[in-house]
Order: sequence, then C-alpha cells, then structure tokens
Amino acid sequence: MTLSEAREELKRLEQEEFAYGYAMGSMHYDGSTGAPRDTYIPRGKALSVLSAAAYALSTGERNERILDTLAGHMDELTPAERRIVELRQKDLRELRSIPQEEYVAYRELLNEAHIVWTEAKERDDFASFEPVLQKIIDANRRFAALAAPDTDPYDYCLDRYEEGLTMERCDRFFGVLRDKLVPLIARVGRAEAPDTSMLDVEFPIAAQEKLSGKLMELLGLDPKRCRLGTTEHPFTMDLSKYDVRITTHYYERAFASSMFSVIHEGGHALYELHTADEYAYTGLGGGVSMGVHESQSRFFENIIARSRPFAEMIWPTLTGLCPELGRYTAKEFWRAVNTARPGLIRIEADELTYSLHIMVRYELERAFMHGELEARDLPAAWRELYGKYLGIEVPDDRSGVLQDSHWSGGQIGYFPSYALGSAYGAQLLAKMKETVDVDECVAAGDLSPVSKWLEERIWRHGKLYRPTELMESAMGAPFDAKFYTDYLEAKMAAVYKF
Amino acid sequence: MTLSEAREELKRLEQEEFAYGYAMGSMHYDGSTGAPRDTYIPRGKALSVLSAAAYALSTGERNERILDTLAGHMDELTPAERRIVELRQKDLRELRSIPQEEYVAYRELLNEAHIVWTEAKERDDFASFEPVLQKIIDANRRFAALAAPDTDPYDYCLDRYEEGLTMERCDRFFGVLRDKLVPLIARVGRAEAPDTSMLDVEFPIAAQEKLSGKLMELLGLDPKRCRLGTTEHPFTMDLSKYDVRITTHYYERAFASSMFSVIHEGGHALYELHTADEYAYTGLGGGVSMGVHESQSRFFENIIARSRPFAEMIWPTLTGLCPELGRYTAKEFWRAVNTARPGLIRIEADELTYSLHIMVRYELERAFMHGELEARDLPAAWRELYGKYLGIEVPDDRSGVLQDSHWSGGQIGYFPSYALGSAYGAQLLAKMKETVDVDECVAAGDLSPVSKWLEERIWRHGKLYRPTELMESAMGAPFDAKFYTDYLEAKMAAVYKF
Repeated sequence: MTLSEAREELKRLEQEEFAYGYAMGSMHYDGSTGAPRDTYIPRGKALSVLSAAAYALSTGERNERILDTLAGHMDELTPAERRIVELRQKDLRELRSIPQEEYVAYRELLNEAHIVWTEAKERDDFASFEPVLQKIIDANRRFAALAAPDTDPYDYCLDRYEEGLTMERCDRFFGVLRDKLVPLIARVGRAEAPDTSMLDVEFPIAAQEKLSGKLMELLGLDPKRCRLGTTEHPFTMDLSKYDVRITTHYYERAFASSMFSVIHEGGHALYELHTADEYAYTGLGGGVSMGVHESQSRFFENIIARSRPFAEMIWPTLTGLCPELGRYTAKEFWRAVNTARPGLIRIEADELTYSLHIMVRYELERAFMHGELEARDLPAAWRELYGKYLGIEVPDDRSGVLQDSHWSGGQIGYFPSYALGSAYGAQLLAKMKETVDVDECVAAGDLSPVSKWLEERIWRHGKLYRPTELMESAMGAPFDAKFYTDYLEAKMAAVYKF
Repeated sequence: MTLSEAREELKRLEQEEFAYGYAMGSMHYDGSTGAPRDTYIPRGKALSVLSAAAYALSTGERNERILDTLAGHMDELTPAERRIVELRQKDLRELRSIPQEEYVAYRELLNEAHIVWTEAKERDDFASFEPVLQKIIDANRRFAALAAPDTDPYDYCLDRYEEGLTMERCDRFFGVLRDKLVPLIARVGRAEAPDTSMLDVEFPIAAQEKLSGKLMELLGLDPKRCRLGTTEHPFTMDLSKYDVRITTHYYERAFASSMFSVIHEGGHALYELHTADEYAYTGLGGGVSMGVHESQSRFFENIIARSRPFAEMIWPTLTGLCPELGRYTAKEFWRAVNTARPGLIRIEADELTYSLHIMVRYELERAFMHGELEARDLPAAWRELYGKYLGIEVPDDRSGVLQDSHWSGGQIGYFPSYALGSAYGAQLLAKMKETVDVDECVAAGDLSPVSKWLEERIWRHGKLYRPTELMESAMGAPFDAKFYTDYLEAKMAAVYKF
C-alpha cells in the first residue's frame, strides 16, 4: 500500500466509522427521547450487530495496514495525520485487548443497564440495579487489566475521559480544593443566606420553552444544526459537528433548573459545532476530552450565566416571560442562583459545593476499581462520604447512589473531569479578560467575542492537540487550581457580602 | 453447507438484516421528528454507508449459499421456511439487478429528496423539486427495466407494494368504482350537506393530546411498544413488532384531522404489533403488503371510527375534552365526519371521493413509468385530471402535485394500495359480521373482539401468505369491489337521508 493509497483508504474507513457512530448515537438518542419504553430489546439487538460491525472495522486488518503504511511515513505526514495515527494506534491497542464477544456483550449490557437503572431510580430500588452494576464494574476491571496491564486500573479509567489525567494529578487538585473550599463553605454557612423564594415561582412550561429558545439564540446555537429536546436527565449528543442534540428537563416550579441546563448543554454544543470543518468525518472531529468539554459547558453555565452582568441582562426577558418575578430584582436573582448550600444532588449543586460531590464519586470509583468495594457496598459507602464531605444525611438511594446515569452508562472515570473542567474555566476567564471585556459583552447580550476567543483557542482544534497541551496553550500557562479557588472566594464574598 | 447449518446461518443473517433495517428506520424516524433541519447531510452520509452494508449482506455470497442449500431441501422445510426462501430469492433477483453504486446513490437521493420536497411544498415551488423528482422517476424506470425486463414497468412497481397487483386488476377495480361512485357522488352533491361547523371549533392541542391517548387506549395500543409523535405528515414506522412509532399533526381548529390520523396510523400499528412472535427478527415479520396494511388502517379509520355507534360512544369523551362541542349532537358529528365533497387534498378526502384522488395518481404514475410524462409535465397533468375526475380547479402545486410525500420517498406504485385497502375493508366487515356484533362492540367501546378477529385471520400471519391468498382466506371469497360500493351507497344514503 502506497502512502497516497493509505490516505485514501483512511478517509473511507473514517467515513464508515463515522456512519456506525452516527447510527448508534442516533439510536441512543432515540432511546432517551422518542422511543416507547419497552423497545430496548429490539434496539439492543440492532445495536449489538452494529457495534460488532464497528468493532470489526476498527480492529480489522484493513485498519492495521493503513496504520502500518502511515507509520512508515511519519515524516511526510501533516500534524493532523500524525495525531490521527497516534489516536488510532492507541484505540487499536485498547480494542484489540478486548475479545470481540466481550465487547459486544458489554454494549448490550449497557443498553439493558440504562433501562434497569431508570426503573431502579424511579422505584428507589438499588437492589434491582446492583447485579447489573456489578457486571459493569467487573467488565471495567477486566478491560483495564487487559488494555493496560501495567497501569493502575483507575488511572486507565481517568485517562479514557481525560488523556493524561492520573490519580496523582487528581489528588493534588482535590487537595487544593479541600484546603481552600472547606473553610470557605464553613464561612458561607455562617453568613446570611440569600432569599431563594423566587426560584420556586410558577413559571409555565410553555414560557420556559420560549426562554430556552432565547438562551439558544443568545449562545449563538444554530437551530438548523442543534435542537433542544426533553429528557429525564439533560445531556448533549454530538452526532456530528453538523448535528448536535441537547436536552433539558422542565419543572414548572424550578425554572432555573432548565435554564442552566440549557446553557450548560449549550456550552457542550458550541464546542462540537465549532470544531473545524476539515476535521468533520475524521478522527479529529469533536471535542478532545471530557475535561475540556466540561470546561466549556461549565464556563457558560457558571462563569457567564451566573455572573452579575448576565443576571441584569437576562432579567427583562425573565420578567417578561414570568411576570410574577417582577416582585424581585436582578440582583436578588443573581444572589439566589449563587446560593451555596450542601445538598444531595450533584446536578443541582452550586458552584462552591459541586467539587465535593465529585470527590465522593472519585473516591468510590477508585475504591471499586481497586477491588476495595463491590456494587453492594456502594449505597452505604455513598452515605458515609456524603456525611463526611458535605455533612448531610442521604435519605434514600434515589437521591443517593442512584442519582447519576454515568455508571449505568459504563462511564467510570468521567466524574473528575467535571471538577477539572470547572477549574479550567476560571483560569480561561483570567486569560480571556486580558483581551476581552467579558462583563461588557455579557451586559450587552453579545457573547460573540467570548465565543470567538474560545473558538480560536479551543473549539476549532478538535482533537488535534492533547488536552493538557491545548489548555496550556489557551490559558498561556500550566494549569493552576488557584485561579479557581480565587474565583470562588471572590464570588462568594460578593454574593454573601463578606 | 448442511441444512441445519443453513438454518442457523439464515437466523444470523436475518438478525443482521434486521439490525441494519432498524438502524436506518430509526434514523429516518429521527429525521422526521427529533433532528434539526439541516442535518440531512451527516445523516445521509451515515445512511449511505449503512445501506451499502445492508445491500452487501442481502446480495452476498453468504446469502446465496444459504438459499442454495435451503432450496436443495425444499421438501424438508416448514411452510414458513419455504416462504422465506421464496421472498429472499425474489429480493435477491431484484437487488442483484441493480448495481450497488446505483442503489447507494439512490438511497442518498431519497434522503436529499425528502428535504427538497419539504421545502418545495412549504414555498409552493415545484421547480425546485422537479430535477430531484425527475431523477427519482429515471431511477425507477431504470430499476424496473433492470429487475423485470419482461414485465411492464408499472406492473413491476405495483407488485412491489402489493404482490400480484397489476394494471389489469387495477383497471377492472377502478372501472367498477367509476361506474358506481360517479353517479353516487353526483347524487350526494345534490343532497343537502350536513353542518360541519363543529369541526372548526377551537380544540386546544393539550386536549387533543389527551384525546390521542384515549384513542390509543381504545384501540388497545400498548404505549410501552408504540408511541405517538408529531410530524408534518402522519405516518407509521414499524421498526420491529416490539417497536412501532406512529405520528399525527395537531391543528387547533381541526381536531378531527388528528383524531382520524391517530386511528388510521393506529390501525397500521395494530397489524405490526400483532404479527406472531415467532416471526420477529425474521423475513416473515411485519405486514405482508401495503394493500393489506391500508385495509387495516382504513378499516379502523373509516369503517369503525366513522360509524354511527362510534360517534355515539366517543361523544362524551369529545365533549368532555372540548365543552364547546356540547352545542352539537353525536349524530351531527357522525354526519359531519362523513360529509362527502370533492376536495384538493387526498389525506383530507372523505371515504366517497377518496378513490378518485388515487385514480389521478394511478394514471400519472402509469404515464410517467411508461415514459409518456416527465417530471416537468406533472403539475399541468395533475390539474387536468383533478378537473376531469373531481371537477375542481387546483390553485397551486402545494395543494396539488406537491401534496404527498410518496414520490419524494421513491414510493411509486404505492397509491393504488390505498384504494384497494379501502375496498378490502368493506368485504372484511361483511365477513366479520357473520360472527361478531361489530356495532355492539363499538357501542360498548370494546374493540377487542374486532381486533381478535383480525389478529387471528390477518395480523398474526405476517408475510407467511401472499396478499391475495391471505385476504381471500380472511374474507372467505375472492375479492369483489361490490362490497365496497354497496357499503358506500348504504352509508351515504344514511348520512344524506336519501
């Protein structure tokens, strides 16, 4: 195979891989939105055939020949091609390590697990989820041992969602957070809490839908390529840079829940929609890692949309759609949505206590990946850590260990990227402010300079650079958690009038 | 390959074919429901890869070896296996006749055509759809010539949707309809028309959604396997007997439009959901033909739901959901929904004039498949035939030649099955009434004896019998259009008080 044949063949293979990924993603999206409840069996059968075919594509001799040929001409390759070869070789090693039947069986298991978890959460019945979760844990232990026998199994998990992330880096990062945030949370706890009654006003769902439309417009999300649906648990599904789905969940008496979900998922969508056209349908299309992704979603959700200028700017829209809010002020709204209070539910947690929810999950994942805990031990361990870190009692598993969809989706090692992403955001903000008057943009309701800055430095690059490399280049310096703790200290001082 | 190996291998192949069909169906459903508008390009790319893979499965050497082995043991096969071999051999001959690149290009063309047609209809702009339609017509002419060089190209099209249907049978059938219905339509035209003002009352969409739920319950549709969505044009998507999607379209001031759409699509869904479990994931799963399918959907829509007892039974529900209807009576509602009046739109046509809409399309399809018309000629030819058959003037293409999605979906030869299905329904009713008190069941709001009768004789058999064979066995006699014309004459006499 010549170099130019290998290049041609790679393009074709990437198109085929894209097709299977698109199809399976589309079916998963359907499974969470339009599908009748009991259809996971036929969908699971179809997914298992497709994932076997996709597996065969990515592990086949054809792929190997392409990679061998390209690897033999490394000097002649473009940086993009070199990165594609690097990523494909890594994937190939990993996939090859897992026998095909096990891989296919695991895909089927996850499809079933989604339904079992949904019902278990509804009925607050951890026991029904436990055997499935144990199988997922066993599979992940086994896959880690097969794929990276010389690596700590939890380091292997972390690296899958954030290339280069390790327990050592996490421990250092969480150590800084613990030192700074625990006293801050205590101080906030002693201060007078803002009035949050406005967050419970009745905000009709039709009006919330209008609000979602306005927010998507404000973020600059093109509705022809990005659509908002509704699901139990909000998520973003990037089927292609030309087709991104985001979802939210409306509660009549908790408008801020959907409002900030739309902005959070919108941040993910912006990243995907603005990866470079030249990377579409190739291995460099899409965001590079979960940590970088969360840095974008949480940047828009917290740093932009929970800022004082944002509250002032959006206030006329909110009171227009829900006249009952007219009794309050924008400043009160800003204080209300920045109220910090230890709670049970991660996705409802405020910026300040959020990382503690992550630390609980980090410790549990590390423990079960190290064989120190089994599925059956998790409800009790969860309760213990929530007591230790957040000082609260967990009344049931529905608002405890069953709350998140990640483990049922096999996403072990994902959580730390949320905390890392939050911290990245604060450091990005500091750098961005050197050249962009962020507050003024937000006040004017024109986020395009912010987006342009992020697109230039992060979004358009897709997977071209490793996450650490990409973020250091965007932030102009190595990662430093202090930006994040400084940001939180300043914000809490303002909100709580220290 | 031994017989038992061939049987095993057939099961596996059928599962794989099911998977690709499910995936592509799911993506098409998504394209009409959850997908953002401009995402047809990535979806089209994915569909083209998947359809190429499915094509390769169904035309590959593996399939041929299985069929050869099974065909060599015909005497030892079960009737189901024999029918599967027959159907697969027919498909294989057809697929083999079309070069793979052309087949794949055609799938992509249809994906694009759906969007082009949608926009052309919105903007009343036939010119923008014309080149795509011409390509679809050209492809169908070519495929007919390749697949069945000794058959009339339009007979080939008819047979694809209704095995065994020919122009000769259509001409005979439409001849009877013309003789009986044209004078009946004239008589109805001279009679005093029912008051239809009740159909324009404001019926809030939320209340119509509740009505849909009640209708689905009444039909016995299991919401865990069958879900109702909304689309511009209602349809049924049978992804599996365990996963059927139906859609409707709500108009605040035309509640009957959605009401009868839900019942019509619900009839299709009942058929799919009640094919035998043993045929699921095999080539015998699903309804046998479009004509038989339409006989079920139109049976529920017209014969059941437009009957006098149905109007009486559903009236309390309707007035409960929309108190404004309280000014009218159930009898007036029954007369209103049976009003016969030549109109522009097929899907809004009444039972009496419906077949004339089909005859227009039948003549146009026959003409363009015979090369007597091209895409550019269709708007004028459409106008001429609507003048001739329905005596009305077509003001624009949006309510003329652009109204249906079928041609943009490549479904040429489909329309006659609607008329045939309607006629089948009347003959089925006559037979059913020998053992089931249909009026009493409807009056009691318990359709289960009707469904049981149909399930026993039609639904459960899937594709095991050829359509004509299946229907003759269910009706206890050969098809006779007179049942249909008698039924319409009696109904019109009652509605119009002749």
